Amino acid sequence: MLENKPHSATFLATCPDGPGIIAAIAQTLYQKGINIISSDQYSTDHKGGQFFMRMVFDLIDEEVDHQELEIALSEVASKLNMTWKLTYSNQLKRMAILVSRYDHCLMDLLWRWQSGELSVEIPFVISNHPDLKERVESFAIPYYHFSITAETKKEQETKILETLKDKVDFIVLARYMQILSTNFTEHYPNRIINIHHSFLPAFIGANPFAMAYKRGVKMIGATAHYVTSDLDAGPIIAQDVTQITHREHVEDLKRTSRDIERNVLARAVRWHIEDRIIVHDNRTIIFT
Amino acid sequence: MLENKPHSATFLATCPDGPGIIAAIAQTLYQKGINIISSDQYSTDHKGGQFFMRMVFDLIDEEVDHQELEIALSEVASKLNMTWKLTYSNQLKRMAILVSRYDHCLMDLLWRWQSGELSVEIPFVISNHPDLKERVESFAIPYYHFSITAETKKEQETKILETLKDKVDFIVLARYMQILSTNFTEHYPNRIINIHHSFLPAFIGANPFAMAYKRGVKMIGATAHYVTSDLDAGPIIAQDVTQITHREHVEDLKRTSRDIERNVLARAVRWHIEDRIIVHDNRTIIFT
Amino acid sequence: MLENKPHSATFLATCPDGPGIIAAIAQTLYQKGINIISSDQYSTDHKGGQFFMRMVFDLIDEEVDHQELEIALSEVASKLNMTWKLTYSNQLKRMAILVSRYDHCLMDLLWRWQSGELSVEIPFVISNHPDLKERVESFAIPYYHFSITAETKKEQETKILETLKDKVDFIVLARYMQILSTNFTEHYPNRIINIHHSFLPAFIGANPFAMAYKRGVKMIGATAHYVTSDLDAGPIIAQDVTQITHREHVEDLKRTSRDIERNVLARAVRWHIEDRIIVHDNRTIIFT
Amino acid sequence: MLENKPHSATFLATCPDGPGIIAAIAQTLYQKGINIISSDQYSTDHKGGQFFMRMVFDLIDEEVDHQELEIALSEVASKLNMTWKLTYSNQLKRMAILVSRYDHCLMDLLWRWQSGELSVEIPFVISNHPDLKERVESFAIPYYHFSITAETKKEQETKILETLKDKVDFIVLARYMQILSTNFTEHYPNRIINIHHSFLPAFIGANPFAMAYKRGVKMIGATAHYVTSDLDAGPIIAQDVTQITHREHVEDLKRTSRDIERNVLARAVRWHIEDRIIVHDNRTIIFT
Repeated sequence: MLENKPHSATFLATCPDGPGIIAAIAQTLYQKGINIISSDQYSTDHKGGQFFMRMVFDLIDEEVDHQELEIALSEVASKLNMTWKLTYSNQLKRMAILVSRYDHCLMDLLWRWQSGELSVEIPFVISNHPDLKERVESFAIPYYHFSITAETKKEQETKILETLKDKVDFIVLARYMQILSTNFTEHYPNRIINIHHSFLPAFIGANPFAMAYKRGVKMIGATAHYVTSDLDAGPIIAQDVTQITHREHVEDLKRTSRDIERNVLARAVRWHIEDRIIVHDNRTIIFT
Repeated sequence: MLENKPHSATFLATCPDGPGIIAAIAQTLYQKGINIISSDQYSTDHKGGQFFMRMVFDLIDEEVDHQELEIALSEVASKLNMTWKLTYSNQLKRMAILVSRYDHCLMDLLWRWQSGELSVEIPFVISNHPDLKERVESFAIPYYHFSITAETKKEQETKILETLKDKVDFIVLARYMQILSTNFTEHYPNRIINIHHSFLPAFIGANPFAMAYKRGVKMIGATAHYVTSDLDAGPIIAQDVTQITHREHVEDLKRTSRDIERNVLARAVRWHIEDRIIVHDNRTIIFT
Repeated sequence: MLENKPHSATFLATCPDGPGIIAAIAQTLYQKGINIISSDQYSTDHKGGQFFMRMVFDLIDEEVDHQELEIALSEVASKLNMTWKLTYSNQLKRMAILVSRYDHCLMDLLWRWQSGELSVEIPFVISNHPDLKERVESFAIPYYHFSITAETKKEQETKILETLKDKVDFIVLARYMQILSTNFTEHYPNRIINIHHSFLPAFIGANPFAMAYKRGVKMIGATAHYVTSDLDAGPIIAQDVTQITHREHVEDLKRTSRDIERNVLARAVRWHIEDRIIVHDNRTIIFT
Repeated sequence: MLENKPHSATFLATCPDGPGIIAAIAQTLYQKGINIISSDQYSTDHKGGQFFMRMVFDLIDEEVDHQELEIALSEVASKLNMTWKLTYSNQLKRMAILVSRYDHCLMDLLWRWQSGELSVEIPFVISNHPDLKERVESFAIPYYHFSITAETKKEQETKILETLKDKVDFIVLARYMQILSTNFTEHYPNRIINIHHSFLPAFIGANPFAMAYKRGVKMIGATAHYVTSDLDAGPIIAQDVTQITHREHVEDLKRTSRDIERNVLARAVRWHIEDRIIVHDNRTIIFT
């Protein structure tokens, strides 16, 4: 898509639906001489429902004063009772990765980042195990190891929160095998992405492969979702599945699942980076 | 596949695993001059596990005495502690269809049957509603209507059981919107196929679309399974899913689901007809 | 989706890209008091490329004069050098189906139409064979049989063209096994939908299953496309594929393919009915 | 699956079909006290066709003399006019990887190898570019760089052939951007695996993404195949595709394709390592 070129801006907004919303925003941009690159809308119900929109503007040619633009958008948004944010393509988001010992999601994210597929900064990787230190550092990314026990869980979370503070915009749990406390998750609402190794809401909780094998399902899947205080119940961002047969034992399911997990997580992370997601009523609106 | 030609036989068997099983069966057939068309095996664990096999034999050229063949197989099976069945390709199974008002699965099965895709007899269709009578009869298939109320449920089941008795080999619930009693299901163990309009075990019970919409899943699916007394928990035969987006309301999910339901059900029915399924520990072994 | 409710209008348009297009259209509608239900845009290149848009408007509440609305849109479109069309949800399109002997695509379309999935009129079905007459007429749809030989091809096409004239808006070739002449196809540019039983551009021409088997591909597919004078090279609307194995002979491929063909064709037909498709440079822009 | 445990053997064989083949092999193994772990067969036509089989035997418990086993199999195979090979699970195959500058397939293979997913030795990686040297060596695998120009092509191939000689069992072209000469490919019949970045036979040759974009296809894919002297026409091992839309430009297609390419190639490599593939008439028989 053309949208990712530098010097564009992405406008993500929601308000009560009603007539004239698109006209009001489009008119505001037109008066500033700004060209709309792409535009997408959704309404839960055009009579009394909630309206969502994503627009990408071209900021290359025009001498656009960002502050003036934001004031103009602010004024029209205020009239529409609109919640909005505007992000600029040259301001990379900062993404922390939390990981335990499984490396497939981590390695995949780092490889995509290195190959230019994910336009993001990765200030550091944090883990409760030392195992992956060397591999992360080979990408010239700092690796912080905070070990954890049942007794030190709260203390470890505090250390992580301090490390993250003002340094990151969102967090990816790349098979991080610890349950975050409500205190932790409330610091980053809709800004922590987790990958769960099952097709939620099937097989919630630990050991979904053993459950899937026992139940004899013919497909397994993975789910990327925002983390809320309610375990495995946060807003779903992306899911995928693959066919399996009776021949696949729990070990085979694990191997098969790794491929799905890394692809689903990468998709969710890319959508988050590109400001394609709005959360409403524990559901995600995704402009792809 | 070549297997469906007339005058072949399908041997479906299971026994404790151990050395020499394939050799014993293959030797028995060879001595009768029978050519093996296809052969497939599976073992949960070749040390102390359970062994499963499906073989298709050619019965065209050879002057094979069926009774002699069955006696020979019986003798070798007895030594192996093997449970088995042998079906002949020219003896069509008899399939009853139970339906309520939704017609998509019914119409799809009838169309596949008419076009020769399902080698089966359909002695009749049974419904708790009169709506689809004319359409079924246009295929020259009798349609029995047994209405049902909360009070007459038991009585209606009795009527259905009497109608089915000695007339059918298996039953397909093509979106039959009544829960069968344990008494009913126990008459036809692993011989009643149901289509559930969700990816089990997600969204068990009634109204899975509303649950799926509320949970904000990104895929919906369908599950064909054998019916047991435990609702929606019987052995799964086939499943499939499709991607959805936030734009799809409950009505859209219903339309999308219809396509998956009819395809998944048809696949399960075909496998059952072709004796490809063995149930073990509430899981299905499927030789495809 | 909410879009299919009665008394909405769909606006499908394309023009050279430039600033202010969305603003101009949205403003025009706002001034008429019209609420936008959905809106989707695409540009091949926002600098000097071609712009495409689809909008659905609500016409229920407002006392909108259609003629005034069209004049207003016409004026703004003229300034933008825009090609456009506006269709009203209560004016059903008229769809002719051409078929030969294979019934799966035809039956599927008729079933979807009967169940309310396709909002369209079907004035008649035309065939070069009499075989499916009874089945079509059971849907209370006239069936015209025009037999064809090498000698009568031109004459038969003339008869079909006369039958279609002023009676239909678009034509679906539901496995119609005759190649239409350029004279015929030029009467209905981007208004004839064909289903080809392979993943185009692989296996162009007759007998794609034999070619697929010989080549040993591991997937087969189907392609719905608009018909142009260049056989199998018209703009592609929808495609799908399914995995196959070495075990599947040509007959198996045919059965497998039927399921894909009918689903892909139904998808293309629905998108055409809902005015979701614009053709540009032999490619389709599809607003889904 | 249980098959990959050490001290098993895999028997891959083909012969003219006829009665008694399975019996003969199974009997031979039974007499040696060998337990069959899995067994799979296929016949192009059980009357006069070609028969294919794959068996995995357990060699753990029994004191099996390998030489005696091979002599016994050799004798029975001789009577059946059977071509066969027997491989032992503790004798890892040696896989050379040839690569140019694209790293996604290479990195994916190395990651899978490192995580134990591919039971193989990688004696070295060979490239016509120096770019990936450091990354390969970080896996403790030697990296040989043989630069190439139009003039030195023959000479470079000779160097590669000398490097490979007696050191490798098969070769993977992980997006190696040079066409191998017939002289080269004939050294390794059915032992060179290539990944082509399109769904063959669509878009044969260079630049399939530009061709796919121009043709306006709605899916792109990748094909893993054995290399023959006929470019892009060798036996297909694995294929997969993904849906795309008009919004995806050539750059997007490249990104989307990378995910398919690495997954399809990994699948083909795993099947080759596990001796699941037999080539016959330019088609692959794959026992999965």
